[in-house]
Parts: sequence; structure tokens; C-alpha cells
Amino acid sequence: MLLVMDQKATPEEVAAVVAAIEARGYSARPIPGGERVAIGILNNKGPVDAAFFLGLPGVRDAIPVTRPYKLVSREFKPEDTLVQVGDLSIGTGALTIIAGPCAIESESQALTIAEQVKRKGAHLFRGGAFKPRTSPYSFQGLGEEGLKILARVREKTGMPVVTEAMDFETFDLVEHYTDVIQIGARNMQNFSLLKRAGRAKKPVLLKRGMAATIDEWLMAAEYILEGGNPDVILCERGVRTFAHHSRNTLDLSAVPVVRKESHLPIITDPSHAAGRRDQVIPLSRASVAVGAHGLMVEVHHAPDQALSDGGQSLYPDQFERLCRQVNSIYEVFK
Amino acid sequence: MLLVMDQKATPEEVAAVVAAIEARGYSARPIPGGERVAIGILNNKGPVDAAFFLGLPGVRDAIPVTRPYKLVSREFKPEDTLVQVGDLSIGTGALTIIAGPCAIESESQALTIAEQVKRKGAHLFRGGAFKPRTSPYSFQGLGEEGLKILARVREKTGMPVVTEAMDFETFDLVEHYTDVIQIGARNMQNFSLLKRAGRAKKPVLLKRGMAATIDEWLMAAEYILEGGNPDVILCERGVRTFAHHSRNTLDLSAVPVVRKESHLPIITDPSHAAGRRDQVIPLSRASVAVGAHGLMVEVHHAPDQALSDGGQSLYPDQFERLCRQVNSIYEVFK
Amino acid sequence: MLLVMDQKATPEEVAAVVAAIEARGYSARPIPGGERVAIGILNNKGPVDAAFFLGLPGVRDAIPVTRPYKLVSREFKPEDTLVQVGDLSIGTGALTIIAGPCAIESESQALTIAEQVKRKGAHLFRGGAFKPRTSPYSFQGLGEEGLKILARVREKTGMPVVTEAMDFETFDLVEHYTDVIQIGARNMQNFSLLKRAGRAKKPVLLKRGMAATIDEWLMAAEYILEGGNPDVILCERGVRTFAHHSRNTLDLSAVPVVRKESHLPIITDPSHAAGRRDQVIPLSRASVAVGAHGLMVEVHHAPDQALSDGGQSLYPDQFERLCRQVNSIYEVFK
Amino acid sequence: MLLVMDQKATPEEVAAVVAAIEARGYSARPIPGGERVAIGILNNKGPVDAAFFLGLPGVRDAIPVTRPYKLVSREFKPEDTLVQVGDLSIGTGALTIIAGPCAIESESQALTIAEQVKRKGAHLFRGGAFKPRTSPYSFQGLGEEGLKILARVREKTGMPVVTEAMDFETFDLVEHYTDVIQIGARNMQNFSLLKRAGRAKKPVLLKRGMAATIDEWLMAAEYILEGGNPDVILCERGVRTFAHHSRNTLDLSAVPVVRKESHLPIITDPSHAAGRRDQVIPLSRASVAVGAHGLMVEVHHAPDQALSDGGQSLYPDQFERLCRQVNSIYEVFK
Repeated sequence: MLLVMDQKATPEEVAAVVAAIEARGYSARPIPGGERVAIGILNNKGPVDAAFFLGLPGVRDAIPVTRPYKLVSREFKPEDTLVQVGDLSIGTGALTIIAGPCAIESESQALTIAEQVKRKGAHLFRGGAFKPRTSPYSFQGLGEEGLKILARVREKTGMPVVTEAMDFETFDLVEHYTDVIQIGARNMQNFSLLKRAGRAKKPVLLKRGMAATIDEWLMAAEYILEGGNPDVILCERGVRTFAHHSRNTLDLSAVPVVRKESHLPIITDPSHAAGRRDQVIPLSRASVAVGAHGLMVEVHHAPDQALSDGGQSLYPDQFERLCRQVNSIYEVFK
Repeated sequence: MLLVMDQKATPEEVAAVVAAIEARGYSARPIPGGERVAIGILNNKGPVDAAFFLGLPGVRDAIPVTRPYKLVSREFKPEDTLVQVGDLSIGTGALTIIAGPCAIESESQALTIAEQVKRKGAHLFRGGAFKPRTSPYSFQGLGEEGLKILARVREKTGMPVVTEAMDFETFDLVEHYTDVIQIGARNMQNFSLLKRAGRAKKPVLLKRGMAATIDEWLMAAEYILEGGNPDVILCERGVRTFAHHSRNTLDLSAVPVVRKESHLPIITDPSHAAGRRDQVIPLSRASVAVGAHGLMVEVHHAPDQALSDGGQSLYPDQFERLCRQVNSIYEVFK
Repeated sequence: MLLVMDQKATPEEVAAVVAAIEARGYSARPIPGGERVAIGILNNKGPVDAAFFLGLPGVRDAIPVTRPYKLVSREFKPEDTLVQVGDLSIGTGALTIIAGPCAIESESQALTIAEQVKRKGAHLFRGGAFKPRTSPYSFQGLGEEGLKILARVREKTGMPVVTEAMDFETFDLVEHYTDVIQIGARNMQNFSLLKRAGRAKKPVLLKRGMAATIDEWLMAAEYILEGGNPDVILCERGVRTFAHHSRNTLDLSAVPVVRKESHLPIITDPSHAAGRRDQVIPLSRASVAVGAHGLMVEVHHAPDQALSDGGQSLYPDQFERLCRQVNSIYEVFK
Repeated sequence: MLLVMDQKATPEEVAAVVAAIEARGYSARPIPGGERVAIGILNNKGPVDAAFFLGLPGVRDAIPVTRPYKLVSREFKPEDTLVQVGDLSIGTGALTIIAGPCAIESESQALTIAEQVKRKGAHLFRGGAFKPRTSPYSFQGLGEEGLKILARVREKTGMPVVTEAMDFETFDLVEHYTDVIQIGARNMQNFSLLKRAGRAKKPVLLKRGMAATIDEWLMAAEYILEGGNPDVILCERGVRTFAHHSRNTLDLSAVPVVRKESHLPIITDPSHAAGRRDQVIPLSRASVAVGAHGLMVEVHHAPDQALSDGGQSLYPDQFERLCRQVNSIYEVFK
């Protein structure tokens, strides 16, 4: 943290700020400049509360200097993390494609889609058993029955499965049945859930919150690593902006930034970002081209009969085209 | 929902869309216009999935027409809801002021602040026992011990207390000790928590998520009402925008909009919106002037020693000035 | 500017950065910390290009420390600026109300409205002669004929007038006829126009761009002051956010921030922020309560026949209520 | 436009709204629904003012149904526009790369860079002669001398040149010297400039404003086409959001949306979106993969000596890598 003093701050005010810094157990380093004094705060463990210092007389600005996260940072661990899921290795060196319906609706629906996406290029199968829905009147998922269907899909197709854990109450259940535990965008700062995920024995796919900065997202991952679980896959799924031609704005510059700041793998979810089928293939190509380690996309064999988000689901043939295009792009610069 | 067809959509495409609407159990009403056909969707219970229809050939746009909420809407219940907390009535006809520290740190801290804010004009006491923190390394609150302190504050001062329930696991505990249960911005779409709050026997103060539309916020309240709890107080606490001169941008036009759309009371939280002490009093005045039913502000007797968010807490004397000013403004146009 | 080096930056990299700073004519001050080195850049005239330093090996972050503006800053001129318009003094110590139609449509329309708003409490009359319109097919204003009508309004009512100068070509004309020259939100960074405004002999009302930071807005004002015109009135008119229940989100925390950072007067424009009539009175009250020096609102005697923005214009009786309420609020804490 | 009435709107209110619609020369078509009435507005030429109807008693919502633009829309002209610049054809069927420094600094600088980027893969040369700068104290460009240098670059290298016209006063000059006239993001709604561009005899490269919706951007292009100039190239350059890890958030879903809505070619500017060199190559790859018709990137032979935006300029060798990668990606799915 760097404190910038007013031009007219008195030496007494500077001394009082130095004393306040030291009273908190940090070190203070005044830096006299041409027009004003700045004061560096050193030797802090953990984040420093900017607002506190802004309240002191003579302080004009409090500027964070270092990043708040530690375990997730590349400075702490320079080499890339590879998350193992069965035989798959998610991260640098491979392009991982996760596909499946928004929600598990029945065993036959799940198996039909799973067999198609496997044949066309998917590595993992996705499908929601517990669904977070904006409206209490919308379909909320099959619950445990959905998880059992996912287990049968894995058994029959050999594909590992990904599904969302929405809350603490059902976390054990989800952890029991799935291979990768998804934490959704709306739960990115559900700290109780993050702590539970830190104790999980399975990898966690952590979606970015729809208004989360990269720092906040990485701090959410820090909760999981700090809890003892090193296997986190980050997933960019679009942020909320003034623009409404897609449901959210897929923030692709997040991919190179995260790859520079952190050792964790990062994938994208173009289906939820776009919210409409006709943008999914272009945004998938762009995601792979920007350097994502993988994609998660929604596919349904009969989108017009889907119980949720059918309009953003690809038809199996579209998914095949997507796989062909993104694999070719990945070859270009891997 | 209104579907707008392409100018060149064929009669067959229009017919197929009508059939798809009817297959979902809704009614379809084609509206031929000068340049193109639009198709109204009627008789839907609950929200219609726009994305689904966008995927059909010839459909150019799918425009939501009606609001998705019901129980919270003023169309459903025209008269204002007054939430009773002990002798207090929160809503139209009164200005309610909630004040206290960000976090409960000790009994003496809580009592000192409570006695001061009561004397200076507060009606309820606030203080966090369980604290959602961006960093796992920050102070996380005193937990149950904090709740017990809140109960003693109520006992000694007679003020009802407000504190946050962060998760399902500790909800019972919070409900037991507190008078009003707060659901924080990061949990606004924690649907498991909302369902639990719907079964609570105490009023719920529901903060707006930092990127939530008013529709989404009211749908979150709908979860609580639908669960059986009619006593919800909405709280605007700033939204995330490109602007960074305050921590969040307090969206005061939300107040007249919510008052028009819903019968529920609405207050604001200028402390969390601003994130810095020097904006809290002006934004409090503005909140009351725009028509909020109350305020929630942070006050600390020694902000420079606070364990969290000290820099946005008012000194007791500032709080007294705030109360004087907002009460005068409230008199002007109540 | 403060440069933060990587933890693993070598002494050679630090030395190279110091050399690069000095090669640009600045001074470099390395600050060794516990985990990494930071380097302060001192003695720069004008802004420093962060992106340049971010490109050097070993540099992790480049953090601006001082504000880029000078003449508009309160550090440069501590006392409040009062802008004189005839007998009126706009700034601290008075509440200035500017009212009138969106566009001048005819002499009788302008005079009818002017007489009404004067009687009910307006100090200046507003009305567009040149209208910036999103669509080339919309009414573009009466042009010079509109300016002549404004001059007759002033003559008959004694009220000074405010109107927008949209471009360099018509600036002379606008300057000739009007008392205050408005620069619109879409032109806030039309630097040619700002330079011309710096040579104007009349006060300038400078609206905030719809995605402008406060720094950028004050830098736009700096162009005008630097050009020789000290009389700038800032006008907050809402910023673009994800929220769409009002046309823009009125950013009221900008008012205390600008009042702290700058000596220039600041008013708000609730009509353009809201974009709908039913939010204008509440947002006007809030603007005065937060500390604005004045308001600019749209009033039309027959909004349903207005050629532009009729739906956000107040009826004269609503304007009277607005004046009564905001004057009472202003009395409370002036 | 579709007007949605309150549930309790009376037949008299519906009739009054119908009358108001017809008084404006439009047709009204009431659509009785289960819970409420909606009223379609038909036969309007040009946009309808939503705010006006929102002010009428009983009206709850006014929802735009059709797009406001005409000449730029694909419905109006289904086949892709190809913009001819000398022998080059910009649009579907080719990938166009525009490269050069942010600002023209001297003839030797411009020629050095031009020769390098031509050899490595650029088709057009870019460079600013008139520079819009946030600060009045920053380098503002060489002016006409810069334009003459651009003309000499064209003469010596054979590459057409692109440069920005900042204002009406210097537009003639820019039009005289350049091959493509750029209109910058800050001028996207400078309607006087757009009208002048509509009379230009050379193609216009129109950047998206930093908070512009796609509708507003296309309406800005509509001004140019309506003025008589059919040759507009759109350029996505990032929008302003809460995220600050890049200067702006490159909105790549705009590319498929614009290609669907309009027949005009669209390119991107990853350098200005990112604001930092290390994101330019990934975002360039993503732009081509998402379907852009071209790229505009900043290249400088000695970025650490550049007079503006050096930190976002690529080194020539990086530009060569960029060209190799994007051309390979373009081959994959063109």
C-alpha cells in the first residue's frame, strides 16, 4: 500500500500517519517527492485496509501495490498446475472440451447426448443436477436422481463428469458422485462453499462471478487452495456490462492475464456468456485462440425440448463443427 | 414475450414458431405489421425462455414483455408492506436508521457504540458476527460469541439488532439471536439461503447484489415470499460500474423504481456503497431525499482501531450530524 | 507513478528501469521492500505513460500516484470558483435552477415555457437549438432560428439562457447569442471543441461523458481553463452501467468527490439521467441533498407534443413542486 | 414499439394511448392478453420516442421492437459490402492487417516502421497526425506535417494509409492526404463530423465509442451512409467496464452480431483495447478466430522512445509472429 499525502500535509500529519501504520504492526517508509510526500507500507501480512488510512488527516489516496493472493500466484509457484481427472490432464499442453446439456432431464436424454458429444470430440460430460435459477418457479433440477444419472453416464461412456454444487447441504452428495465439482458464478463469493471446496478430495471448476475482478476471482481460488485442495480450474463465463447483444460480455483478455498471474488452468464457457446459440461457435474459436486451456459448452440433441437454456445449446452437428475448428486453431500456436 | 420475425421470414417459418409456442402450452398471437410479423406469447405461467425462441429459423428478436415476479409486485399487492420489528414499523410513514460497527469485536466495543448511536438517533443496531471477506486471511468475525454480544446489546439498550446470516449451517443460530436477518450482496442469488430465509420467522434485510438488475433483486425477494416469509426489507448498497472514485456506485434511481414496482420497503447502505467516510453523509442525505424508507450506516467509536472497514465508519459525532440532517430532509417531503 | 517490480526482478532489471526513467528526464527513486522493489518516478511534468514502463523486463505494475490535472484542482486553487452569469453567481452559497424544454420548437413554445418556469423558480432558461441526435432521421433543432428565439426569451423574461454548442462551425454563433455555452456528454472529449471553449468569453457548462471517469472529466475542464477561460460549470448527467431501469445511472457520489478535488461548481441533470419523468423529482431532491450547486431539468408545457424527449419533461406544476422541495432541502444544510 | 399497459389500466386509458399514437401519425394495434393489454405501434418512419409514451397514464413499459437503422442493415442490403482501397478489398474473403505507430513522429520513424510492417505482413499503414489526447499537456501530433509524411510513406512503400480526422476544421486536409479516414472512439457521436464524413470521397474507418451499444454504433454509420458515403469499415476497440486488467474490455461478441445485423466489414483494434503489449497477440488471434475481417495494431521499432502509447506497441518481431499466427488461424475456417 502506498499512501499519497496532500500537498499541504504538515509534518505532524505525516508523523501521525507513520505512527498509525506502525501501531498496526507494519513498517512505514516516507518518500519525499517534489510536490508531496508518499508513504510506503511494508511488512504487512495479508491485505491492508485502504479505507482506514483514507480517513486520516492529510491522506489523499491509498493505493494498493501488491496483489492480495499468494498460493494461487505464479510468483509463489512458477510452474503450471495440471489438474488430473482420471487419465486427463487439464492445463498447459492439452485442449480440454467439456460438453453436455444445461440440466440432466432423464437418463435417456443424458446418455443420448453423452454418446454424441463423446463421438464428436468431448473429453468430459457436463450436466446440472442442482440448478441455480433466477426464478423460484423455474425447473430446479432432478437433484440426487440427476447425480445418479451422471454416474451411469460415466460408467457407460467412460467420460468423467462435471456438475455444480450449489450449497453446503448437498455438497457431500455432489462430491460423492461427480469427478469435477463446479462452483457457479453466483456462488463465487459464497465463502462457506469455498471453504467446503477446500476440503474436497476432487478438483473444483470455479466460475468467475459476473462482476468479479480478477483479483477477487483469484482470492476465491485462494480460499480453496488455502483449505488444502490444490486442484482448481478457473472458468471465464462473461461479465456484466452495459452491452446487451449477448447475455454477458466474454472477457477474453482475462485469459492471458490469469495465465500470467497464476499457475492454475483456465477455460471458458461461451454458452453462458453468449446466451444465444449463434455466438457460441465464434466465441469458442476466440477462446482457444486467446489461449484458454479448454471450453465448456452446452449441447442438446433436441434443444427445442430442453427444460432449461435450450436456446443457447448447440445441436450435435454444430458441436462437431466446433470441435473441428477449435482443434485446428489449437494446433496453430500450441 | 414478443417474438419479432425477420422481414423475409416465410409464412412456413411463422407457422413453425406458432407451433413451437403452442407445443410449450402457451398461446401464440401473430401480429402482422408493415414490414414484418411479430408474434405475442400469451398465457405463460412463469418466465419464458427467450434464448429458446431465438434459435428458431426466422426469429430475429425475443423481447420480454411482462415482469417475472409476482408476490413482490405492487400489481399483486397494491398497499405498502410495513415490516414490524418489535415496536418499530419499517416502511412508508417512518424513517428508520440502523447503525453500528461493521463487525462485533467485543462486548465493550459493541455496547459503547450501541449506547452512542441510540442516543444520537438510531432505531436498530447492526454488527457482523459472521463476516464474508474477500480474503481468507482477513478477520472472519467472532461467530456465535458475536451473536451473544448482540443479544446483550438488545437487552441493555432495548434496540433490536440486525446481523448477517452467511450460510445455511449457521442460519438457525443467527435466526435464534437476531431480530432482523441480513442477507448480503454476495449471497443475493444464493438460492439455498433464500429458501431457508423463506422459512424464517423473522424479517429479512435483502441487499442488492453488486451486479443485479432490479428484476433479479425482486426475484430473489420472491424466493423468500414464496417460501412463506412476507417480511422483506430491500437494501440498495451500490452497484459495480467503471467508476472507482467510490467503492461502488450508489444507484439511487433504484429507490423510486422499487417503490413503484413493489410494495416492499427499501433502505440504502451508503457506507458500503462509498467505502470511504467522507462520502457517507452526503449519500445518506441523498438517500432520504430520493425516498428511501431508511438507512443503514457504519459507526465506530474508534474507527482507527476497527478490525474491519474502519475507514468507512463514521465517528459518533458525524453520525449525530447525519441523523439531524436526514431527519430534517425527511420532514420536508414525507 | 510507482513501478512495482517482480519478486524475482534482477538488480540489472532494476537498474535498466531506473535508466529508462532518467532517460525520459524524470527522477527515479528505488524503494526496497520486504518481498520486492518498487521504484518511484518523480519530477515529471505532465502525465507519465504507464504502458511504456509495463513493457520493460521485470516490471509487474505501474501505478499512477498523482492526479493528472492542475488548474482545475483544489490543491492549485483552494477557494471555490463562483461563475458569474449576469447577476447570478453559480457555485457555493446558492442553489441555481436551470429549466426549459429539450429543444426550442417555436417562439411561442419557448416563451410559454420560459414564463412558467421563471414564475415557478427557475434562474436560467435552457433549450436546444442544435441537437445531437442518435439518429440522422430525428429532429435536429431549429439552428440559428432557435438561437434568436433564445435571445428573445432573455429579452422578455430577463433570464439568462443556456444552449449547446455542438461543433466548431457553429460555435461562434452560439457564443454570440447565449449566456452559457453547453458542451454535451458526447462531446466531452471533443478536444477541438474544448480548445475553442477555452477561448470563449462566456461560461461553459461541461457535461460528464457517459463513460468518463472523474479524472477524464476534470481533464476536459483543464483544456478549457488552460485555454484561458476560467468559468466552467460541471454537470453530472448519469453514466452508462448494466442497469436499465433508468436511461443512465446518476452518479451522485461524483458530487462530493468533485467538490473535494476541484474548486469548480457542479450541478446535475436528472432529466437526462432518468430518461423518464417519474424519476426526475426524486433525483432532483437527491442531487440537492448530496451537495450539488444546482440542477438542470427539462420542462414542457405540453410534453405529449414535444418534438424531442417529451417523456422525460416535467409539466409546469411538477416543476413547481420540484422547486419547492429542493429549496426546502437546500435550506436544511446549506 | 410495443406499449405494455398496467394490469389495472382502464379502457379509457387504453383508448387515450391509442389516440396519442394516432395523433403522431402512427397506427395502433391493441393486443389483449390474459392479464393486461399491450399496444403495438406500427407504420412509424424512424425511431419512436419511448419516453413520451411512458409518461401516459396506464402505460407500464415501452419496448422497442425494430432496429432504428436502415441503410447499414443486412435486411436492407443482404450482400456483404467490400470496401475498396486501391487494390485491396476489405471485407468478407480477405484478412486485412493495418499496422504502424500510434503517432507519426518523423519521416525516418514512419518509413522505418512502414518498411518493416510491410515486409512482415501489413496491408495498410496507420499513424496519427492529429492526436486526441486526454491531457492538454500531452503530445498532440505533428498535424499537416504528419500527413505529408504519410503521403511519402505511401509513395515509397505502395501501402495505402489510414489516419484520424479529429475535427471538421482539419477534415479536408486529412481527406486530401489519406486513403482511409479514421473517426475515433471519442468522436463516434460527433454528429457534425459524421455528416462531413458522409460527404467524403474516401472510405471511413469508424471506431466504436467506449460506451456505445451496437445500435448506437450502427446509427453512427447510418449518418455516414445517409450522407452519401457507402464505404464504412467498423472497428471494435474495447468498451469500458468495471474490469481494469486491460485498458478496455474487447467485446468480441460484437463481431458475429455486427456481421449478422449489417453488411459492413468489421475489424478490431487489440492495441487500444488492451493498452498493454502482452495482451495484443492473444487478442489479435481471438479477433481473427471470432470472425473479424481484419486487425489494426500498433507497431514501433523502438517503443521505449515512442512519444505516445509506446507500451502498447509491438516490436517488429512480435508483429511478424502475430501475422504468422493470425493468417494460420484465418486459413482454418475462412
